[in-house]
Amino acid sequence: MKLREVDGMTFVEGGVCAAKGFRANGIQCGLAHAGASVTKKKNDLALIVADKECTAAAVYTTNKVKGAPILVTKEHIADGKARAVIVNSVNANTCNADGVEKAQKMCQLAAAQLGISENDVIVASTGVIGQVLPIEPIANGMKSLAEGLTYDGNPRAVEAIMTTDTAVKEVAVQFDLGGKTCTMGGMLKGSGMIHPNMATTLTFITTDADISAELLQRALSDTVKVTLNRVSVDGDTSTNDMVCVLAAGTAGNKPVTHEDADFEKFENALYAVMMNLARMMARDGEGATKLIECAVTGADTEKSAEIIAKSVITSSLFKAAMFGEDANWGRILCAVGYADTDFDINKVGVHICSAKGDIEVCRNGAGVDFSEEKAKEILGEDEILIKVSVGSGKGSAVAWGCDLTYDYVKINGDYRS
Amino acid sequence: MKLREVDGMTFVEGGVCAAKGFRANGIQCGLAHAGASVTKKKNDLALIVADKECTAAAVYTTNKVKGAPILVTKEHIADGKARAVIVNSVNANTCNADGVEKAQKMCQLAAAQLGISENDVIVASTGVIGQVLPIEPIANGMKSLAEGLTYDGNPRAVEAIMTTDTAVKEVAVQFDLGGKTCTMGGMLKGSGMIHPNMATTLTFITTDADISAELLQRALSDTVKVTLNRVSVDGDTSTNDMVCVLAAGTAGNKPVTHEDADFEKFENALYAVMMNLARMMARDGEGATKLIECAVTGADTEKSAEIIAKSVITSSLFKAAMFGEDANWGRILCAVGYADTDFDINKVGVHICSAKGDIEVCRNGAGVDFSEEKAKEILGEDEILIKVSVGSGKGSAVAWGCDLTYDYVKINGDYRS
Repeated sequence: MKLREVDGMTFVEGGVCAAKGFRANGIQCGLAHAGASVTKKKNDLALIVADKECTAAAVYTTNKVKGAPILVTKEHIADGKARAVIVNSVNANTCNADGVEKAQKMCQLAAAQLGISENDVIVASTGVIGQVLPIEPIANGMKSLAEGLTYDGNPRAVEAIMTTDTAVKEVAVQFDLGGKTCTMGGMLKGSGMIHPNMATTLTFITTDADISAELLQRALSDTVKVTLNRVSVDGDTSTNDMVCVLAAGTAGNKPVTHEDADFEKFENALYAVMMNLARMMARDGEGATKLIECAVTGADTEKSAEIIAKSVITSSLFKAAMFGEDANWGRILCAVGYADTDFDINKVGVHICSAKGDIEVCRNGAGVDFSEEKAKEILGEDEILIKVSVGSGKGSAVAWGCDLTYDYVKINGDYRS
Repeated sequence: MKLREVDGMTFVEGGVCAAKGFRANGIQCGLAHAGASVTKKKNDLALIVADKECTAAAVYTTNKVKGAPILVTKEHIADGKARAVIVNSVNANTCNADGVEKAQKMCQLAAAQLGISENDVIVASTGVIGQVLPIEPIANGMKSLAEGLTYDGNPRAVEAIMTTDTAVKEVAVQFDLGGKTCTMGGMLKGSGMIHPNMATTLTFITTDADISAELLQRALSDTVKVTLNRVSVDGDTSTNDMVCVLAAGTAGNKPVTHEDADFEKFENALYAVMMNLARMMARDGEGATKLIECAVTGADTEKSAEIIAKSVITSSLFKAAMFGEDANWGRILCAVGYADTDFDINKVGVHICSAKGDIEVCRNGAGVDFSEEKAKEILGEDEILIKVSVGSGKGSAVAWGCDLTYDYVKINGDYRS
């Protein structure tokens, strides 16, 4: 799908290897458990390594059930430093008595092979929860995983974090900080698993920009709110969600240590990467045939706009109507109406848009005549924009989702093994 | 499906006509709009009339978008009195410029035919929103609708409020108030429409018990919280939801005017009626093959237990797993984990139960070994109970939902016309 432009950013190839000094690799170590119906052989273990120690920041799931890898990663980046990421798919290593031990072991194995401290290793897992993680395949594969690291290994790494993803999700940008060209790239796994279980999302971002750990964390926390946190495939917050950034500081820019213009540019780069990854994730939501974007304007606050936008893109009735390419605007207005925030429903307007055009379907809370034929043409596209205006306030927000399809039910209704 | 017993209540036949002094009727007046793909001829206009003026109470949708009939009904029962209910399906009379006028007209037409005040008429509509309600079919049909009223007319009336409902939803009970036998009965429409649009729910209840308007309202508001408000088919709160009760006071009981033992018995009867209607609604949710009940115990408060129970029954991933008869307890724990309330995830236990047995799948937040074969047998039933214990508090709550199926997508993905 087409990347969305952001001012001052140039898209480049390379994903997590786009920034200078990052190597990556992915292998199939053989984590598929007994009885699993794995039909497609794919990588299941990835490693990303920086040439030098990086400042590091992360944001984690808010689910009370937290995967063991998250607990270990939190400890390891408490000092704002890290150098490598080890991640597996197939098994989430969550709700297991020995989960923390296994997550630590993964860090130790990677650290030993790379000759770095295990405290500099970030660990993540995604897959079925509540099944003991077999450590042997990971231990056996670590040597070849490390030996195969290359400065263009991102395709092998991104494959290893994919589950039922039908498309690779990676993006990289170049931007200028005080005359120095900086690069930032990331990869993300979408919603779906070999054994569908959680709408788990893992995101890994690397950059060669020089920025303090504190500001890196601030930029990440800010940007998550308007990108990954504005996506919903099915409303289920997973136990293993994590996004982390490694900043190597090798680009030669004056270190970003204050909330100045350079910090803004850095945040903008992070936004360009994460917003595009967020859109890819929504577009490739389990069973999805369409990306649905809802842009709300005129709310009293940004938060209010966000609540309304998310209410629309999470409505099952609306999502099913989008699958049916039905301009059933009543469902949009209904979802706007039950959003838990203040506004005057009699001022609400709705437009349905795509590359094929823009039609107004509701004004001042009541329907307006429109051409069903034109609506059908617009909804035939695979990227749909719903514009909702709710008044004359300055609050606006965008949220991303997807349609609800037979395949969503199929993917998630199938027996695990 | 089997009715659930409540102490002191005897189930009887008759729905809204079970209580003494209530007549009902339903006809097909012909509201299907041009281009509608109505394949099944069914009643679309119902009338319920009491022999004498009743005390009346109602609870309405919290959606900011409110159907015009709700605005008119609110006015008409502001005095705590009503005598008739006129209700149509097919068209929700919502988001139309002339909606209030049309809703008033429906009351006037019914009142004129019955020789009562239009202020004593409750009006409700359900169907597609944003399409002008044609009043002619209603005006033309009112005479025969009124003339056909009988003391056993509930089957014709309940058919008129059904949309894509696959089963009639009505229940009635008898109970004792100070030696006098009182009767209460109700009917409810489920989730789905001839032109699927809203998870609209309308509920009408009649009783011959004698109770003040104030206490009738209190009993209804209390009971809605633990019955209808604990059901979710798809998380979409409709614009036209309404539940109303008419109490004729002809049973001869000492009028209920205080929160005494008789009030408790009355509330209990309301609970028996509304809880069973709630279960019927969940079981017949759009596309559903199973009723899912989630019972949470051990929470700090009832509210906390309710939040957790609703989180489970609204999880799309969990609902799809139930359709697949997959004992994927990780999804249950995940939904418990993101419930927005306080508890210790490490004390959570989960049992999966049905008429075929009860298996423990999770203890202290971690999986326990169980027989997948037994689980499959349990999940093969069409009424599933998920028991979740979250600690040692006294808060408990039950919520009802259904599985997520291909048919849900089909019903709601179809084009309107």
